[in-house]
Order: sequence, then structure tokens, then C-alpha cells
Amino acid sequence: MRQVQTIADLRSAVQAARQRGQSVGLVPTMGYLHAGHLALVDAARRDNELVVVSIFVNPLQFGPREDFARYPRDLARDAALLQEHEVDLLFAPSVEEMYPRPLATFVEVPDLSQTLCGRSRPGHFRGVATVVSKLFHLVQPDRAYFGQKDGQQLAVIQRMVSDLNIPVEVVAVPTVREPDGLAMSSRNIYLSADDRRHATVLYRALQHAKALITDGERDGRRVAAEVAQRVAAEPGVRLDYAEVVDWETLQPADVLQGRVMVAVAAYVGQARLIDNLQLTVHADGRVTEH
Amino acid sequence: MRQVQTIADLRSAVQAARQRGQSVGLVPTMGYLHAGHLALVDAARRDNELVVVSIFVNPLQFGPREDFARYPRDLARDAALLQEHEVDLLFAPSVEEMYPRPLATFVEVPDLSQTLCGRSRPGHFRGVATVVSKLFHLVQPDRAYFGQKDGQQLAVIQRMVSDLNIPVEVVAVPTVREPDGLAMSSRNIYLSADDRRHATVLYRALQHAKALITDGERDGRRVAAEVAQRVAAEPGVRLDYAEVVDWETLQPADVLQGRVMVAVAAYVGQARLIDNLQLTVHADGRVTEH
Repeated sequence: MRQVQTIADLRSAVQAARQRGQSVGLVPTMGYLHAGHLALVDAARRDNELVVVSIFVNPLQFGPREDFARYPRDLARDAALLQEHEVDLLFAPSVEEMYPRPLATFVEVPDLSQTLCGRSRPGHFRGVATVVSKLFHLVQPDRAYFGQKDGQQLAVIQRMVSDLNIPVEVVAVPTVREPDGLAMSSRNIYLSADDRRHATVLYRALQHAKALITDGERDGRRVAAEVAQRVAAEPGVRLDYAEVVDWETLQPADVLQGRVMVAVAAYVGQARLIDNLQLTVHADGRVTEH
Repeated sequence: MRQVQTIADLRSAVQAARQRGQSVGLVPTMGYLHAGHLALVDAARRDNELVVVSIFVNPLQFGPREDFARYPRDLARDAALLQEHEVDLLFAPSVEEMYPRPLATFVEVPDLSQTLCGRSRPGHFRGVATVVSKLFHLVQPDRAYFGQKDGQQLAVIQRMVSDLNIPVEVVAVPTVREPDGLAMSSRNIYLSADDRRHATVLYRALQHAKALITDGERDGRRVAAEVAQRVAAEPGVRLDYAEVVDWETLQPADVLQGRVMVAVAAYVGQARLIDNLQLTVHADGRVTEH
């Protein structure tokens, strides 16, 4: 695996692969890799001849009172993991390399960015869309891999790619979970042993929602209220939101049909955790999970 | 010259050229071509093996009370001109092809979009940046050609390309003028014979500004005031703005040094016309024009 810090080195390495006729897969990350990231890497490895992983803790997507400074970082460990997973190229730029002067250009998907996490994280998805668009232009991958765990991010990026005709295939990869159901997240490091036990309520509440919908419940607000109630009742957990939304609009789905997302966010100890479930409610009543 | 209406046909034609190893130049236009556009085409022809011209009157960059509906269109005449100028590929999509559903994603350069023309055309440069970013993703050109006449548009696009790392070289082409100095514009068609005579005041005022600066004037506000006064004094002409701005920020340049733009906009009859002069005031006092 080759590791580069500069845009010039990244571009020339990718260009050399292109000239050899290789397909290119990109996995954008903020590092501190866990099994969820590695599932993205493995999917990219299966589909592409050149696999590029970026590690960049993007200041633009953190609010002023969020955890940019203390966000966990361990580049040496990440590099060793990526090497094991047969990554070809690791791009780990500095903030100065990505933002050599104050950014004046932003990519925004306002309608999908102001709901759900956007309400407590104004500017977050603008930061995500902007940096992902930069990475797409830098690498020009054939495919890019994102986890379903960041469901709203996935929706924003899919919409950006479609609306702006960006020539990349966005591949969604299912959430990887701990044995007790907790979704893998770099922020799980913030959890104490007690927090860690309570944090599983997100998964348990989502599984309850899935059972309700599978059993025929079609009132999205009722499902959301049940999820909210379970999460809020857990000691040491403060609910941010629980919603059932239409996948295309991310607006509350009153009547469940087509592709929907049950999404939940909560503060657990020092961490803000999110999780979701992506389902399709078919016309014949079947419910399938993505 | 091949003419295509669909994104699929455009992509496959460009891809075929790429596979032949050809360089690609893009000239984005709204059609109703004049000598200014053809100067862009000729520059693209000199630099590239495949020349792509797009003709698309982009509704997203017109305000609700602007001239989208009556903007002049003549695709047959345009196609004949482009054929004469040895263009390889003309992309003339419908609005539905470019915007198959309501757009949810926007590219914005807010700091450069709210000054000058942005004040009387809110949303205009967001529309420009967004559609140009779509065209860049559709064609993936090596070089793209823009006229200096739309100075603020050029600044917005250069900044977007730099900030978002879009892999394209933006080539600025000098304004083409009528013998009496009037800048070529598709909107000149709106001018009556009387308007047409009065419209030259924009060029005359800019030439006066250039003379002042060449003679040593370094107070940007004084230059702007002289331009404003000359334009406002012309019968049948209503001044929108006259400003002297720093090229990087598009903010008023109090003291003229480095690259600056003298920009003017005015309503003449049924038309809103713009013009500008791009100068560098060197440290040794020399003044050069771009």
C-alpha cells in the first residue's frame, strides 16, 4: 500500500492506474477505522482494480461546539489495517492540503440537510457534500462506498451525485454491528462501560420498529413514537430524535409505503450516536430490509 | 459536427474520443451565438482535439421576473455557425434532460455571488455554478472556455473549480466588441436603434476609467464614481451599478493594486447590459489589461 499526503501525489498515482486501464474504487473515511469501514474497503476491493481510501477528519462538517478537536485519530493503526485489507492507496491529507485558503464554494442539498441530524447539526451536511465532492473530483472513482449507518449522509450523497451528474456509482454497504447490535462507530470510543450497555437501546428500539412494521403497522408517526419512547426510557440516554421518513425526501412518512428509513439519534454519555433501519414496504405488504 | 440532445449520447460520444486519446475542450453557452461565443470556440479548437459546445438556456439562472421565456433562441443558425467553426459535438439538451426532477443540490460561491450583478440577480450565480458543475461532470473536459465579458461569472467559476478541485483548466477569453466598442451579447438583440447608440456609453465609461488608472489614479471609489456618473448621464440609460473591485474577492478596491475589475451594469431599453475591464496595477505603476 502506498500512502500519500498531497493532492499532486494522489492525482498522479490514480492517473497512472487509469493509464493501465484499471477501475478505481474510493472509500472516504475520517479514520479511526472499525469493522464498518473495513466492510466498505472489502466491498471496494471486490469491485475495483485500484482501491483508494481517504482518511480526513473534515473540519467543515463539525459544528463549533462539536468534537472536531477530540475526534479519535490513529493513522498508524489505520494504515496497518488498510494494508491487511489490500488497499492500494491511502490518501491522508492535512487540513491545509484540502483547504489551502478559506473555502468560498459549497455544495448543498438543503431539503435533505435540514431534517433529522441536520436540525441539531446545522452546516454538517453542507460540509459532508462539499468535501465528498472534492474527493470525487480528486480521485474520479468509478465507484464510491458509503455505510448505511450514516443514512442521511448516504441520501445526501446519492442525491448530489444524481443532481450534479457526477460520474460515480455510489455503493451503499450495510451497517456492521457488535454482537449485541450496537452499530460500529468511531464515536463508540467515547462510551463508558455503563454507556456502552445503555447504547444498545438504539438497536433494540429499531428492531422493535421493524417488528411493528412487519406485523402490519403502517402509521409512521406511531412507529416513531414507540422508538422515541423506548430510547427516552433508557437510563443515561437522552433522545435527540426518532423518526420514520420517506427515503427520497427524508420527510416524515405518515403512511408507510415504498422505501423508508427509521432513524434515531441520542446522546449517550459523551457521545452522540445514530442508527437507522432502511426498509421497503412493498405494495403486497411484504417488508424487506436494505 | 454531431448534434446530441441526451446525456447518454453526449457521454458516449465524449468517451469514444477519450478512448482515442483525444483532449476535450468545452464551450458552455446559452446559444444565439455571436462573435464572442465564436472566439471561445476558436480558442477551444486551437487547444483541443475534440471540441464540445453546449447550448442550454438554463432556467435556474434566471430570476422570476427575468427574460428566460423571451431569451433569444435559434438552434438551426447556431448549429450552422458551429459547423463552420469546426466544432465536433453540439450538446443541446432539453430542460427535462438537464433537470429530470426538481433539483435538490446546489453549488454556491456566496461571497462572490452577492456583490455586483448578484445584488439585482439573487440566485443567478448559484444557477450558473450549479449548471456549469453539471456540464463539467457530463463532459469532463480538459479545458473549458468562458468570456471575460461575464467577469463575475468567470470569477465564480474559477473559484468553484479551485475550491472543489474540479479537474478542468478554465480558459478566459477576451471580450469581443462591435467596432464602436459595444460588447457582444445575445441580449443586444433587445436594443432599438436609439438604445444601440446609447449603449456604447458602457464601453466609453470603461475606457475613461482605464485612462484615469493609467494616468495614476489609485482611488477605486473615485474611478467608480466617474464611471457611474458618465453612464447615468446618458439618455435612455439607467445605471444598475459601477464598481471597481478586487478580482479575488469582488469587493470594492479602495486602493488600486494587483488584479482589479472595473465593472458596470445598466438598463438600456428592454435590455440589462454588463461590461467590464480587467486590469492589473503593478507595483511599479504599470497598468496592464487582461
